[in-house]
Amino acid sequence: MTFETLDIRRDGAVVFATITAAPINLIGPALVRDLVSFVIEAEADAGIQVVVFKSGDPDFFIAHVDVTRISEYRQETIPLAGEPSLGLLFRRLSLSRLITIAQIEGRVRAAGNEFVLACDMRFAALETAIFAQPETGYGLVPGAGGMQHLARLVGRARALEIMLSGEDYNAAIAERYGWINRAMPAAELDGFVRALAQRIAKFPASARNGVKTRVNSLTLASAEEFREDSDLFLERSRDPVSQARTQIALQQHGFQTREGELDLARQLDRLS
Amino acid sequence: MTFETLDIRRDGAVVFATITAAPINLIGPALVRDLVSFVIEAEADAGIQVVVFKSGDPDFFIAHVDVTRISEYRQETIPLAGEPSLGLLFRRLSLSRLITIAQIEGRVRAAGNEFVLACDMRFAALETAIFAQPETGYGLVPGAGGMQHLARLVGRARALEIMLSGEDYNAAIAERYGWINRAMPAAELDGFVRALAQRIAKFPASARNGVKTRVNSLTLASAEEFREDSDLFLERSRDPVSQARTQIALQQHGFQTREGELDLARQLDRLS
Amino acid sequence: MTFETLDIRRDGAVVFATITAAPINLIGPALVRDLVSFVIEAEADAGIQVVVFKSGDPDFFIAHVDVTRISEYRQETIPLAGEPSLGLLFRRLSLSRLITIAQIEGRVRAAGNEFVLACDMRFAALETAIFAQPETGYGLVPGAGGMQHLARLVGRARALEIMLSGEDYNAAIAERYGWINRAMPAAELDGFVRALAQRIAKFPASARNGVKTRVNSLTLASAEEFREDSDLFLERSRDPVSQARTQIALQQHGFQTREGELDLARQLDRLS
Repeated sequence: MTFETLDIRRDGAVVFATITAAPINLIGPALVRDLVSFVIEAEADAGIQVVVFKSGDPDFFIAHVDVTRISEYRQETIPLAGEPSLGLLFRRLSLSRLITIAQIEGRVRAAGNEFVLACDMRFAALETAIFAQPETGYGLVPGAGGMQHLARLVGRARALEIMLSGEDYNAAIAERYGWINRAMPAAELDGFVRALAQRIAKFPASARNGVKTRVNSLTLASAEEFREDSDLFLERSRDPVSQARTQIALQQHGFQTREGELDLARQLDRLS
Repeated sequence: MTFETLDIRRDGAVVFATITAAPINLIGPALVRDLVSFVIEAEADAGIQVVVFKSGDPDFFIAHVDVTRISEYRQETIPLAGEPSLGLLFRRLSLSRLITIAQIEGRVRAAGNEFVLACDMRFAALETAIFAQPETGYGLVPGAGGMQHLARLVGRARALEIMLSGEDYNAAIAERYGWINRAMPAAELDGFVRALAQRIAKFPASARNGVKTRVNSLTLASAEEFREDSDLFLERSRDPVSQARTQIALQQHGFQTREGELDLARQLDRLS
Repeated sequence: MTFETLDIRRDGAVVFATITAAPINLIGPALVRDLVSFVIEAEADAGIQVVVFKSGDPDFFIAHVDVTRISEYRQETIPLAGEPSLGLLFRRLSLSRLITIAQIEGRVRAAGNEFVLACDMRFAALETAIFAQPETGYGLVPGAGGMQHLARLVGRARALEIMLSGEDYNAAIAERYGWINRAMPAAELDGFVRALAQRIAKFPASARNGVKTRVNSLTLASAEEFREDSDLFLERSRDPVSQARTQIALQQHGFQTREGELDLARQLDRLS
């Protein structure tokens, strides 16, 4: 399996998929196309049981979507999602027979955070991982499942705080909030995730599927709920207030540039 | 805006509402009337986006309801709740377009705790905040939404522990249980909440409303559920066992007095 | 009350039920029969309000079910569950008017963990308590309510991690995950639980029942959901893959022996 924005390495029944969408791992048409192809191929290979998603960039796991190419990347979701919707693509990933683990180092914000929320588990480096759901700062709402997952995982008050503040959260707080499974020192993270992935991959698939199917039936929001959020995001992205803020962010605040995104939370302060 | 039991200070789009219902911030007719008027006025002022609730008493955020004036304070809820019910008033607050933040120092128990559970976020001082839901000790049940919020936020076992023990909980444990957003040193609390409130207030209202509406649809219990708890509280408050315990608490254990309420959990031990 | 596998001690309205099903507190026909009889007798005694479950074995609270006697112990559940199902027996326990507290020292795995999840509260010793839901390692799924409780308590990602890894978790992590109420030093545990139980027992039963009934209606899965998991467990236990793994575990890896169960998570590694 060879992709433009994913580096694939296989070890037995575990595949390590490293995101390499330079310069800052934006979710654009290329990354969505590659993710879709990768999942289709991996699901078709009965020898693959577990997928670990990592980043090739120490500063960014996934920045967020490329706001200048929304309709393009949405089109790329169709082969797996059945309709143009990043939220429904991510929901489809949560339903996969593959067990997915996000190994998070660096920043993961907005739809990037929604991607890791769609994974079955999330482990993050205490020193470098940064989480945020900053859409409201741009007049948008999380449209790819973040509202669904956060409301269920961290409860009403913390979900509102995360999404209304748009602030950066480190891995220690993310763990305390129940946003991620666990935070640990970067030096331990790789070995921990590798051992966990191999262990899970060796257990009988039939039992694994039984558990995942039941847990999804109890915890995963319906396609209808994801679609409603997806539509609300699209509606807001066409709103003049949102478009104006996004343009100013792009032109004056380094939005979608490496330097501007390093401290996005403070850029948002200046935008207001 | 001038009120008997609320001190209002405005800073841009943020209003700081300090509860000053001496001697111990009991929820009686005056405080309910003022809260109702304040919310109606603040919602009508398009320049106000965020409300921070604080206490003017370092020992008490809100003690609980005045058990000698239940039908009076219930009447005062009608202009906002539509019917005499503190629970439905608090639920109405959770549905407000205003973003509400509780900045908690001192004790907040029973309906006081249900008030902060109705706020959109809760931040508390590690040194002084104390939380309790002690109704069962008096033969009552939480009737203003506490059962709804706690069951969803902290899960079955912790919700039962909190409500069946009626114990005092400090801010550190409240944070670990997911009862509050975060505990922090008192010296940092004021600055943290002020900055958060101002940040939220500067983001576009349309996006904020989108997020709050969706999160409420996923996490806020129905009016029917609140009404059922409200009715159960009323039913229990008329029960002879409950009335006898409350009378003894009032007459012999300093219930509703400053001194008796400082260590209410131990007063409850003696009552049993 | 005298039982083969339960040691009963009463202190006022609190009963301490110590599990003594040597050698490792397996859930077999004897322990189920005793649990059923004990609950029926305790519920019929209006003087009993709270039950504390403890273990007589410092290394094992409850190991898991005796996999060689599944249909036998299931038959023993009928007097309380109404049908042969450990999950429905445990659900019936969650609905009891008795308040149940699990005081956990030593290992509690699989159906043992599902038993403590059915209790109203769980407190565990930091030094010795170990939790696991390892069914998938044997080609099985948790069939006695574990999927229901874990999905609701710890959320999608942590529930999947716990059940797909089958790993051992210590009390500190179990507390951080929201799996148990609280972890504390073994030296404090006994006194803490005793005081809590006595306090709860002295509050009016009518209020306690009101709270428990309402919280159950919000948090306890339906009989239908429990039955579906129970059936899925039975189906998987008859699967050749599961039967082969279980036989190898019994014959070569010390499964259901004291020595083999001390480090069950590593035995599972070797099994794979």
